[in-house]
Amino acid sequence: MAKARFDVVGIGNAIVDVLAHADEAFLAQFELTKGAMTLIDADRAATLYENMSPAVECSGGSAANTIACLASLGGQGAFIGKVHEDQLGEIFRHDIRSLGITFDSAPSVGGVSTARCLIFVTPDADRTMQTFLGACVELSPADIDPKIIADAKVVYLEGYLWDPPGAKQAFIEAADLAHDANRLVALSLSDPFCVDRYRDEFRDLVEQHIDIVFANEDEICSLYQVEKFDDALQQVRGHCKIAALTRSEKGSVIISGDEVHVIDAAPVKKVVDTTGAGDAYAAGFLYGLTQGMSLDQCGRLGGIASAEVISHFGARPETPLSELAAAAQS
Amino acid sequence: MAKARFDVVGIGNAIVDVLAHADEAFLAQFELTKGAMTLIDADRAATLYENMSPAVECSGGSAANTIACLASLGGQGAFIGKVHEDQLGEIFRHDIRSLGITFDSAPSVGGVSTARCLIFVTPDADRTMQTFLGACVELSPADIDPKIIADAKVVYLEGYLWDPPGAKQAFIEAADLAHDANRLVALSLSDPFCVDRYRDEFRDLVEQHIDIVFANEDEICSLYQVEKFDDALQQVRGHCKIAALTRSEKGSVIISGDEVHVIDAAPVKKVVDTTGAGDAYAAGFLYGLTQGMSLDQCGRLGGIASAEVISHFGARPETPLSELAAAAQS
Repeated sequence: MAKARFDVVGIGNAIVDVLAHADEAFLAQFELTKGAMTLIDADRAATLYENMSPAVECSGGSAANTIACLASLGGQGAFIGKVHEDQLGEIFRHDIRSLGITFDSAPSVGGVSTARCLIFVTPDADRTMQTFLGACVELSPADIDPKIIADAKVVYLEGYLWDPPGAKQAFIEAADLAHDANRLVALSLSDPFCVDRYRDEFRDLVEQHIDIVFANEDEICSLYQVEKFDDALQQVRGHCKIAALTRSEKGSVIISGDEVHVIDAAPVKKVVDTTGAGDAYAAGFLYGLTQGMSLDQCGRLGGIASAEVISHFGARPETPLSELAAAAQS
Repeated sequence: MAKARFDVVGIGNAIVDVLAHADEAFLAQFELTKGAMTLIDADRAATLYENMSPAVECSGGSAANTIACLASLGGQGAFIGKVHEDQLGEIFRHDIRSLGITFDSAPSVGGVSTARCLIFVTPDADRTMQTFLGACVELSPADIDPKIIADAKVVYLEGYLWDPPGAKQAFIEAADLAHDANRLVALSLSDPFCVDRYRDEFRDLVEQHIDIVFANEDEICSLYQVEKFDDALQQVRGHCKIAALTRSEKGSVIISGDEVHVIDAAPVKKVVDTTGAGDAYAAGFLYGLTQGMSLDQCGRLGGIASAEVISHFGARPETPLSELAAAAQS
């Protein structure tokens, strides 16, 4: 892979997560779709927050989590996303920059606050996400710095960007710039309901414009409207340079042309909160890929990163992932 | 103890904690006094935050933590403290109200932001706190609601309130109102350096105005400028109705007239972050006291609450303390 200043530049919604415990009765009472990411407006966010248990705040955002994990592995990362000029925006900026990640997107000044994702973690460690997009809707092609895109081995885009209209344009522009510079473009399908909303466009993206696709079992099955994982596998095969498909405790499957790897999940003592599992997997995988590792090694690194993140509350790693990766190799 | 709407009303600095890991070299580089709470201005807060690792945000504040733990044990609590009308203030308000705690203090509108405490947790689980008091300096006697004070079995005051001048006046007014209503007044000495700053006043408070004093070993030794715990013990004995003295892994000692109890610490699997240990102890103790339990039971409840809080990052309980208290009794 040609040299570049950055291993990966992520483009995504810049979000601060607000995490709390909740039980099934709470999800039912407020009619929350368990395990999914649902977009909410400011009023709904206020109502849910008022009824939420005591919470903790951590920086989040799917692609931002991925770049944070990549940096924790030792990779060079950049992030493009829109915060507001407020306290939550300051928290987001601090947490990403303090990892050595380049994050120079101008904050929005007028308009709405930095995005918040209310995350309800049930006793089974599943997470139900309710997102108020806030300033994220102001991301536009003007935020895409062509120099950064051209100087990153991989551009990583989250499917969630399809929700705010200007961000979708930014996404497409970034993908074009990357390909013009002979760089790879990676996409995460983000969420089965997100795939439901934009199935035709996502299928076109995966089959025509994307080099690497990340999806979990629900997402890839939703993309092809099939029930069995293996059916989805046969469909995606050959469309992308690489498909990295995650299956929770069953590990992951990587397909690239004739090459296929079935990788076991890394062991986890206790699964506490699955928020960010897919984001961390993508980070491990892309770190390996940009360091020239084999695809099975990439998958294993993805599993190691994912295992760390689900062992505690919040989507960002608590233990430096570089240490865990080194320990796994020794 | 006479009936009341509230078991305990806490008055303290309303702070959002910003917690991150740090090593000893970081403390040395920025000349931080390990294990202590140091007041900092906005510029210093900005510098330290810029150099801080990725962080998580949790509501904090010493007396607020105590009331949160009291509520988690099943007690009826109220809190008086000053936030600003900003996102951190909203977080603080949410976290305390969502526990069923009455918190009606009007936020400040002009002026500075909600207080932040940058907490650097070293690998030995000790915490070094750097506090920007922000809106806390605007707490004044006008914020003391006489109805709430008269309707709480205990008024709990943190020694840290001596730092913002208006808060000190509020503190004294609340103590007078409580005694007028035949209620108990409790004080936490907060921090050995805080005791250093106000030794004469604190000694006068403890000896003349306070019914229950909470202090750890360093604080009570600082109060009486003695080196040995037992010397401090002899000095405080007889001055207060009750002195509850904590000694980390050595447990606690409770003195009330001729009654003395030496209580072992509750077991902890792994000490992760000692932030809030003393706050939680005071909560368990006061919950027991306001439920009419014996002093040794109060001390044991303090130990149980404290053990939960030091087993994870952040000063507020993650597991309902009422469950842990029930399990310990069965």
